[in-house]
Amino acid sequence: MRGSLVESRHRGAVAVVDAERATVLAVGDVTAPVFPRSAVKALQALLLVEEGAADRFGFGDEELALACASHSGEPAHVVGVERMLAKIGLDPSALRCGVHWPISQAAAAAVARTGAPSALHNNCSGKHAGFLCLACAMDVDRADYWRPDHPVQRHVRAVIEDFTGAVLAQDTCAIDGCSVPTWAVPLKNLAGGFAKFGSGHGLTPARAKAVARLRRACAEKPWFVAGTGRFCTEIMQLFGQRVFVKTGAEGVYCGALPELGLGIALKCDDGAARAAQAIMAAVIARFLLLDDATRAALEPYIHPSLHNWNGIEVGAIRVTDVLE
Amino acid sequence: MRGSLVESRHRGAVAVVDAERATVLAVGDVTAPVFPRSAVKALQALLLVEEGAADRFGFGDEELALACASHSGEPAHVVGVERMLAKIGLDPSALRCGVHWPISQAAAAAVARTGAPSALHNNCSGKHAGFLCLACAMDVDRADYWRPDHPVQRHVRAVIEDFTGAVLAQDTCAIDGCSVPTWAVPLKNLAGGFAKFGSGHGLTPARAKAVARLRRACAEKPWFVAGTGRFCTEIMQLFGQRVFVKTGAEGVYCGALPELGLGIALKCDDGAARAAQAIMAAVIARFLLLDDATRAALEPYIHPSLHNWNGIEVGAIRVTDVLE
Repeated sequence: MRGSLVESRHRGAVAVVDAERATVLAVGDVTAPVFPRSAVKALQALLLVEEGAADRFGFGDEELALACASHSGEPAHVVGVERMLAKIGLDPSALRCGVHWPISQAAAAAVARTGAPSALHNNCSGKHAGFLCLACAMDVDRADYWRPDHPVQRHVRAVIEDFTGAVLAQDTCAIDGCSVPTWAVPLKNLAGGFAKFGSGHGLTPARAKAVARLRRACAEKPWFVAGTGRFCTEIMQLFGQRVFVKTGAEGVYCGALPELGLGIALKCDDGAARAAQAIMAAVIARFLLLDDATRAALEPYIHPSLHNWNGIEVGAIRVTDVLE
Repeated sequence: MRGSLVESRHRGAVAVVDAERATVLAVGDVTAPVFPRSAVKALQALLLVEEGAADRFGFGDEELALACASHSGEPAHVVGVERMLAKIGLDPSALRCGVHWPISQAAAAAVARTGAPSALHNNCSGKHAGFLCLACAMDVDRADYWRPDHPVQRHVRAVIEDFTGAVLAQDTCAIDGCSVPTWAVPLKNLAGGFAKFGSGHGLTPARAKAVARLRRACAEKPWFVAGTGRFCTEIMQLFGQRVFVKTGAEGVYCGALPELGLGIALKCDDGAARAAQAIMAAVIARFLLLDDATRAALEPYIHPSLHNWNGIEVGAIRVTDVLE
């Protein structure tokens, strides 16, 4: 909304599924393949824990949260990823994610003052450091860890297949912004996968233990999953272990509501993050039993106000009745 | 597209109209009100020329292009706007557009190295300097030039009504990012307005002369209308006076094809600039007679390739058959 009129409209689809893969809510087409992008980073990080690499290298909650993160490139993110690499004797030159300016405007300005960004500032650098640690633990090649046919990516693919029940085939594979493969998966499968991630239901004991540890790490250190002022960070700060949520590029979110055994996956058709966030907040509010204070704290994410460069309120984002 | 699959979809509407207000092309709903935002900056700058302020203050093509601009905050943009203000004895503190970091990443990094952005870096600072110059020429208050009831904005409203044939009423008025009023106008009216802007048809001689001068200024100095690597700049560099094009926030473009007497207005429903640009390029290609070299030069704007942080081609933007 701008003033009293609708200025722009976003469409999308949402699936909420339980750990038995029963659909609890389906809005829009939840069977079409969707590239989850960074929304499945927690699944991409799973083997780091399950295969024992996290223990071997002494990773705590910060390192595990960074492995699941699309971080803002703020100083403590960069230091954390550098520390992960140092534990396997590598430096940032081993990262193959490419370089971009920090998502955080303040961090970008600080980087500009003293130099230029590096691969450490790439929002995916923690995931890539995790892949390198896994490659190291698996004792396989560490140069091509990002390629679809590398053992690391083949094992990651098998994990995503196990969680989602989808077949990740060549015809649904594309290249992500950080060069690793991304496979398109229907939202209902992604939601089912995150129901398992949230509940551990139907997983092997080792896998269930690993997801619990990743969920706890993200709930304990949500700032490391995204950063200052970011949706994933603020929602997990608000809810702790009650909500896991992770954004992906092009308007995707995956999430879990462990106490209800539900997984959530959504995609805004046009790729807009602002709409995807409001949808995710509305879905959380629809399913979780909330006290008044928590509901009030969640409200600004469902119905954000928009302010201009002078701080004047110029409009708002609204979700439609279908979600409320 | 990402790989071989559609990743995200944008919808929108396009109107192409002649100076008699006859519709030549209508795709989608061209009668619903749309906030044109910065796409009508050339109409907002018209009185600066028509009322003699541009002559009185010795403005050349650069200053006039800046008055029509959503500039990237690069050094020469900032210098140009400061020069406009100096000609009326004001400094940047007179600007009421608010402050944001330069659109240009390189300019933002350079600003960060030495200080912080000012209102001069706001993409609308040239328009605001133009309003101040008009207020000065009209000898009216210069503090509240941005308010809807100020003489400057009331006169600007009358200009937009004259061009578009739409009534700009209170119920379609909202506040723009830079705090000036923005009125929602149907795309067919906006397109008709830009047919007049491109051809001068149906305008008073003074007004027709003023639009010709603004068009020439933008064609001569397109870098000042946007900036390095920007769509408006590159398209007007390619076409000179054959195409006028101007972006507005939330996926809007207005444009003119003077040799055909046509105006163009389009809106991507979800506000995405990437789609709006491809639509505008496709519409230009559909209507203008182009030699092979020009058609080849336009092609990358209709079908852009997408590359990731490592420079790997990961996808493409495509317009649908309805535009081709």
